[in-house]
Amino acid sequence: MSMEKFVYFFGGGTSDGKAEMKQLLGGKGANLAEMSNMGIPVPPGFTISTEVCKVYYDNNRTYPEIVRKQVKENLEKLEKLQGKKLGDPSDPLLVSIRSGAAVSMPGMMDTILNLGLNDKAVEQIAVKTGNPRFAWDAYRRFIQMFGDVAMGVPHHDFEAILESVKKEKGVENDTELTADDLKKVVKLYKEAYKNFIKEDFPQDPMVQLWAAIDAVFGSWNNKRAIKYRAINGIVGLLGTAVNVQTMVFGNYGDTSGTGVCFSRDPSTGENYFYGEYLMNAQGEDVVAGIRTPETLKSLEKENPEMYKQLVGFKEKLENHFKDMQDIEFTIQQGVLYILQTRNAKRTGPAAIRCAVEMVEEGMINKETAVKRVTPEQLDQLLHPMIDPKMRKTLKAITKGLNASPGAACGQVVFTADEAEHWAKDGKKVLLVRKETSPEDIGGMVVAQGILTSTGGMTSHAAVVARGMGTPCVAGCKDLLITGKSIKVKGIEIKEGDYLTIDGSTGEVFNGKVELAKPKFDDRLTKFLTWADEIRLGAERKGLPKGFLVRTNADQPHDAVVAREFGAEGIGLCRTEHMFFDAEKLEIFQQMIVAEDVATRKNVLKKLILLQQKDFEGIFEAMNGLPVTIRLLDPPLHEFVPKTPEDTKTLAGKMGIPVEKLQSKIDSLHELNPMLGHRGCRLGITYPEIYDMQVEAIMRAACEQTKKGVKVIPEIMIPLIGTFQELKMLRANAEKVIASVFETMKMKVDHKIGTMIEIPRAAITADEVAPYADFFSFGTNDLTQMTYGYSRDDIGSFLPDYIEQGVLERDPFQAIDQNGVGVLVKMASDKARAIKPDIKLGICGEHGGEASSIEFCYRTGLNYVSCSPYRVPLARLSAAQAVLKNK
Amino acid sequence: MSMEKFVYFFGGGTSDGKAEMKQLLGGKGANLAEMSNMGIPVPPGFTISTEVCKVYYDNNRTYPEIVRKQVKENLEKLEKLQGKKLGDPSDPLLVSIRSGAAVSMPGMMDTILNLGLNDKAVEQIAVKTGNPRFAWDAYRRFIQMFGDVAMGVPHHDFEAILESVKKEKGVENDTELTADDLKKVVKLYKEAYKNFIKEDFPQDPMVQLWAAIDAVFGSWNNKRAIKYRAINGIVGLLGTAVNVQTMVFGNYGDTSGTGVCFSRDPSTGENYFYGEYLMNAQGEDVVAGIRTPETLKSLEKENPEMYKQLVGFKEKLENHFKDMQDIEFTIQQGVLYILQTRNAKRTGPAAIRCAVEMVEEGMINKETAVKRVTPEQLDQLLHPMIDPKMRKTLKAITKGLNASPGAACGQVVFTADEAEHWAKDGKKVLLVRKETSPEDIGGMVVAQGILTSTGGMTSHAAVVARGMGTPCVAGCKDLLITGKSIKVKGIEIKEGDYLTIDGSTGEVFNGKVELAKPKFDDRLTKFLTWADEIRLGAERKGLPKGFLVRTNADQPHDAVVAREFGAEGIGLCRTEHMFFDAEKLEIFQQMIVAEDVATRKNVLKKLILLQQKDFEGIFEAMNGLPVTIRLLDPPLHEFVPKTPEDTKTLAGKMGIPVEKLQSKIDSLHELNPMLGHRGCRLGITYPEIYDMQVEAIMRAACEQTKKGVKVIPEIMIPLIGTFQELKMLRANAEKVIASVFETMKMKVDHKIGTMIEIPRAAITADEVAPYADFFSFGTNDLTQMTYGYSRDDIGSFLPDYIEQGVLERDPFQAIDQNGVGVLVKMASDKARAIKPDIKLGICGEHGGEASSIEFCYRTGLNYVSCSPYRVPLARLSAAQAVLKNK
Repeated sequence: MSMEKFVYFFGGGTSDGKAEMKQLLGGKGANLAEMSNMGIPVPPGFTISTEVCKVYYDNNRTYPEIVRKQVKENLEKLEKLQGKKLGDPSDPLLVSIRSGAAVSMPGMMDTILNLGLNDKAVEQIAVKTGNPRFAWDAYRRFIQMFGDVAMGVPHHDFEAILESVKKEKGVENDTELTADDLKKVVKLYKEAYKNFIKEDFPQDPMVQLWAAIDAVFGSWNNKRAIKYRAINGIVGLLGTAVNVQTMVFGNYGDTSGTGVCFSRDPSTGENYFYGEYLMNAQGEDVVAGIRTPETLKSLEKENPEMYKQLVGFKEKLENHFKDMQDIEFTIQQGVLYILQTRNAKRTGPAAIRCAVEMVEEGMINKETAVKRVTPEQLDQLLHPMIDPKMRKTLKAITKGLNASPGAACGQVVFTADEAEHWAKDGKKVLLVRKETSPEDIGGMVVAQGILTSTGGMTSHAAVVARGMGTPCVAGCKDLLITGKSIKVKGIEIKEGDYLTIDGSTGEVFNGKVELAKPKFDDRLTKFLTWADEIRLGAERKGLPKGFLVRTNADQPHDAVVAREFGAEGIGLCRTEHMFFDAEKLEIFQQMIVAEDVATRKNVLKKLILLQQKDFEGIFEAMNGLPVTIRLLDPPLHEFVPKTPEDTKTLAGKMGIPVEKLQSKIDSLHELNPMLGHRGCRLGITYPEIYDMQVEAIMRAACEQTKKGVKVIPEIMIPLIGTFQELKMLRANAEKVIASVFETMKMKVDHKIGTMIEIPRAAITADEVAPYADFFSFGTNDLTQMTYGYSRDDIGSFLPDYIEQGVLERDPFQAIDQNGVGVLVKMASDKARAIKPDIKLGICGEHGGEASSIEFCYRTGLNYVSCSPYRVPLARLSAAQAVLKNK
Repeated sequence: MSMEKFVYFFGGGTSDGKAEMKQLLGGKGANLAEMSNMGIPVPPGFTISTEVCKVYYDNNRTYPEIVRKQVKENLEKLEKLQGKKLGDPSDPLLVSIRSGAAVSMPGMMDTILNLGLNDKAVEQIAVKTGNPRFAWDAYRRFIQMFGDVAMGVPHHDFEAILESVKKEKGVENDTELTADDLKKVVKLYKEAYKNFIKEDFPQDPMVQLWAAIDAVFGSWNNKRAIKYRAINGIVGLLGTAVNVQTMVFGNYGDTSGTGVCFSRDPSTGENYFYGEYLMNAQGEDVVAGIRTPETLKSLEKENPEMYKQLVGFKEKLENHFKDMQDIEFTIQQGVLYILQTRNAKRTGPAAIRCAVEMVEEGMINKETAVKRVTPEQLDQLLHPMIDPKMRKTLKAITKGLNASPGAACGQVVFTADEAEHWAKDGKKVLLVRKETSPEDIGGMVVAQGILTSTGGMTSHAAVVARGMGTPCVAGCKDLLITGKSIKVKGIEIKEGDYLTIDGSTGEVFNGKVELAKPKFDDRLTKFLTWADEIRLGAERKGLPKGFLVRTNADQPHDAVVAREFGAEGIGLCRTEHMFFDAEKLEIFQQMIVAEDVATRKNVLKKLILLQQKDFEGIFEAMNGLPVTIRLLDPPLHEFVPKTPEDTKTLAGKMGIPVEKLQSKIDSLHELNPMLGHRGCRLGITYPEIYDMQVEAIMRAACEQTKKGVKVIPEIMIPLIGTFQELKMLRANAEKVIASVFETMKMKVDHKIGTMIEIPRAAITADEVAPYADFFSFGTNDLTQMTYGYSRDDIGSFLPDYIEQGVLERDPFQAIDQNGVGVLVKMASDKARAIKPDIKLGICGEHGGEASSIEFCYRTGLNYVSCSPYRVPLARLSAAQAVLKNK
């Protein structure tokens, strides 16, 4: 430990770190080091590494002596470089203390600016700068931040003082306060501090520094940071780094300013220089959305030289990092500093456009492009938009900034808490706020869309919404929000009323508006083609080339959509959905209440032709691609009337006494239908049902083959728990198939396989495999049984479980690799040991989720299958899984 | 194959086989060989081995040439020894063809007697014996058996002929028919044969022989034999052997006879010579129960010399085999032959008495004694008997033979089919038949008791009932059974009426009679002490000595009973049962509908003292032994009112609106409660409930400790699926315990552990183990989830599954070692790898079943826990598991 390096210097055209050291220095620290190495003018400073964060927590929130020593050494080096000393009454060095983890967590952790100020230094600065107002404003800001962030003095105490002084003075804006006013504010702030802390505001800058460092490391585990990491699945980090950096001031006066810029448009991805700035302001003023900033166009006009410099740095940075940059800059008395650069958060369309165009520009290769777009970003392109046909007839009631693309419609709520509350009740909500803050994160996640009345494109609401792919309209100034009511141009909107926003245009519409899915554009198609090249070229030992994406589709229409989205077959066609149309349902009900096998068989004869037609439609739509058809799965009681009226109607139609029908219905009741008489258990007890379905499938296959369609049917027997079930049902199916082939005087290649969704089937996969041409993992049911969770009932405890950290994620969303995944792997290994060429796939909803797809790839599955609208995501996730495991 | 030996000769004081060759020669064949070696006079013959049975089925029911060759050679040897030739018209050899597997399956397979007779031979025998009646009777019996058994001619065809001839003759008994009458019967039999088979009755004895051998091997896989093996769990046999043996005749005339005897009383185990015989009869007459036989006392009186010989052989055989013998003998014209000996089937009391007395006599050692009593036999000693107090007031309506001990009470049914049918509907039935036959086996299994009007102590009904431990009264001649009615001494009993039998005394009582459990006697106590010595001395690598038996008990009374039965602790005390008494239920309901945590905590305070009292009672009863208490497990909706009336009552008592209560109740409804909000999930979402329970447990522990009771509490947290649940709940519990200890100013050693009943808990046992002092496998729920079977709903398909062989056994009765067992083993291994001294047990119902207990022993569990009345069985099964795995 004693020889280890914990603190890394940067600035003066050189540095101890570099961009690759993100894990150790955090994203901000690593990039500051890199920029310094590149000769970009960053205010110098040093980074206390993320290892110290871990050590800090491991040692009960204390630091080893060596850390204190290295901080001291680096501080001295900084003072030497800057020619100033921290706390020097004659020329004090001021520094900022900022967090910075390897993964960006905007606004989640703490920052303290202007550190080093005290009662003496403030006077010196007033003298040295000849700007007492600036000096006293900096000091009051510092006391407020330090008091609030490092010491826990209530924010509100400071706000109240500021308000009272403004009121006394009769002014509205902070900028209207004079140096003397601010001096008074400082006095009152210090009193408030002492009042709460029972100690004087610390004058020793080293005390200030260590308290600030403590605060930043401490903020790594504050509630909202933990929640943010949980929501965004950020795991495996050591902690945050702490950056101690020389302050530069954008609020020095009219030749000073601060801004944020992007090397390309983070909303669309278009390659033009996009940004906002404010003169005579500190960075927080831009980010917090309190004043509405100017665009870079103004800077170009007002100060072309400064603009040119900025463009130069922007290009240097993008070319160096080969990705869209999000750059913070400050102009201090006419001198430009770059405070931070990082890869820009961007919308889905921007991510795609940027990735594709950078490949076309020769900046990156296709693999990098494919790695760079997250499935969530791609998902945004598939988000609802306002139905284009309806669009023309609609008139927006107002317009704000198009902060995050996509359209959203929901019932208005005014607080994040309400949003969470309503969403729990299954309602779709639109969160309306003046501005959002990190405390609102929970409500933002569950909202369909976010609408704010203040703040710009880089405000908290905008940044977070884009990151989540949630539509957002920000800075919609026409909205007058008071309590639980919005007034806008004479219209009043109350809690629970419907509003619709279009985050792509910034428009706001009153009431409920029909939303429609967007279409693929050429850029997306090109991008996915690159992903497919990687995915289909994947080589795994002992497995056929490629990793395929199928879809779950029950109807010809779904099959067509999925095929357009790039599905390479159907992984799950649920036959029971076919029984829910009125004609078939009635026949099916007759079958269920039949008294004996002969009657049942007769009724089933009526169903064969209808089922056959369904299957023909699907085979036709999937011409040339495999279609896995699952035989009847749900328990029979799902098909019988649920109300006395419906029972009476059915009894009438069937000409049997109501009591008789009711008694049959009652006899089908189950206490735990999930674990009841369903799936292959029906196939064993009512073999005639499966016989009918197999006959319909194979007749359809023959008919379509005759018509020139290439049919690849795969019959899937669900809910196997013992090999005997599959052995028996496979034999039955083969008998039926042989008889169909004899009648039709032809044959069609086909497979018979099973779903692995019962833990016992996975455990005994070596016994089951001999009777299966393929396994499809039904991870929905497998998760239910492995965890003992009923999906239908989980709502009563899952939120608590996530909240309390019992579960990191909902196991029905991402496959539980430690538990359910162990069974999938066990089954795969056992099956492959017996039958190396057995085809393995997944058809649970996990088949459309990135981490689960990667798990399937690593486990050696041949394909994943997901809902049609998830197919593009699955294609991307699969490609990324291939790249990650190369 | 060519050099192998398939046929084994016996007789003439020597033989190719011996007793140890049971697997190869079957029980009968091996003992015939052994007896021949011992100089016991067995009719000579040869055994075709069980390997041939396997070869026969493997080769599509044909024999390799070598088998035919060896049969021929052995037949020639036999002919030489007997000085007679099969089919020799001048002095024909007659043989019997009998089945005989390694495990006795009485009456399940086929037998053919008198083989070798044909139209010429019968005449010769008539001449040579000077007894034409005997000769023709033998021939007609042979045609009937051969036709029925080997060729499938309906039994009834022959019966009808015999009846018509008797009627024509005006006689009632077969014995009244003359040689000429029988000659006529033979003629008609042969016509019936030809009529059905379309061929003449075969005259060539070799054709007869091979057809008979075919029939016996074929009978191995007849329906009733398969069912018998399934019911009795007989697996792993090659097949049956076939014994070809010289015929001896008990029906040669008045100096001939046949009988069955037991070296001890198979009903009580008492050491006296017990048996029955009939003069001038064949063995089947005794077994079939058609004529009522004489006891051996008569033989001793009538023919003391013969009796002395028989006693000599009996003693020689018992001393040789060192077990109670079931011996068949025949006297042919004054010469005694022993046809068969085997270890006798016996009742439970007989098994215990026999085992204990044989140890005391020095015949066997304790280990042998312990091995020899099956858990089912022991179970009979724990069977209901008529309540001794009521007994005096009861008057039997009639009395039969005390064929199988124990009392039974049920609704009368008259066919095995009805018995099965009624039992399926949950009714307790008493099966009443004239006599039973192997076809009745299914109905006999489900009946509470069996009552027959004919047949002796060795009739089918008696033998089978004793084997199954089902109470049986046989040969109750007073019963007049016609259709679905019994008339007995003026009383009429119809289907559905209640009858009670006492199989230990033979009494029959009208109506429903209260039954009571029997008490342990000294012999049983001694026997179980021997079993315990073995069990508690068991040494397994890396484990503490011994394999313990605990009990599942929720109330002090159960705990006392279990302790008397030898329980070494409580493995599962379900706290929720305590809430079902009226006072506690009402408080508990108030807790459930409480609006907030504070109210809930207040209500729970009222429960603490009540729960504490429950726990004190149990700790007191189990003084010195560990008590595992499971915290609340079932979902809350199990405790709320189920009907509108009850809801109204509760709402009134609680002073809240009915609608409000109803809405709370509705909100608790679950679609799959098995997989719902229960177990530790309640502990996470309502921590105050578990806190209350833990407080009650530990307060009880302290109070009892103060009173001098040695309390060993083990707190068990149910339904863990992730280690986080246990980690969190353990921490909560420890906090509560610390506070109890502080308040009480004392400490009590305790453990905190978990139930492993969710597949995921087993899979991640290495993650869970660090937080558990013990695991208790809840194999009921583990089986439900591993198979995906709801126990409550399994009735709709389980019977089909067993019937069709999808499942060999109900997995809730015997643990599924291939599936559920794999998880138990996985969890045990993973847990022990992390924590070698973790205590492992089982508390599912499997803990009282022999094969599951052996599995637990092999898997390294420290104890099993079962219901109080199963404890003695578990002690025996555990000892047997130790012996089996030595």
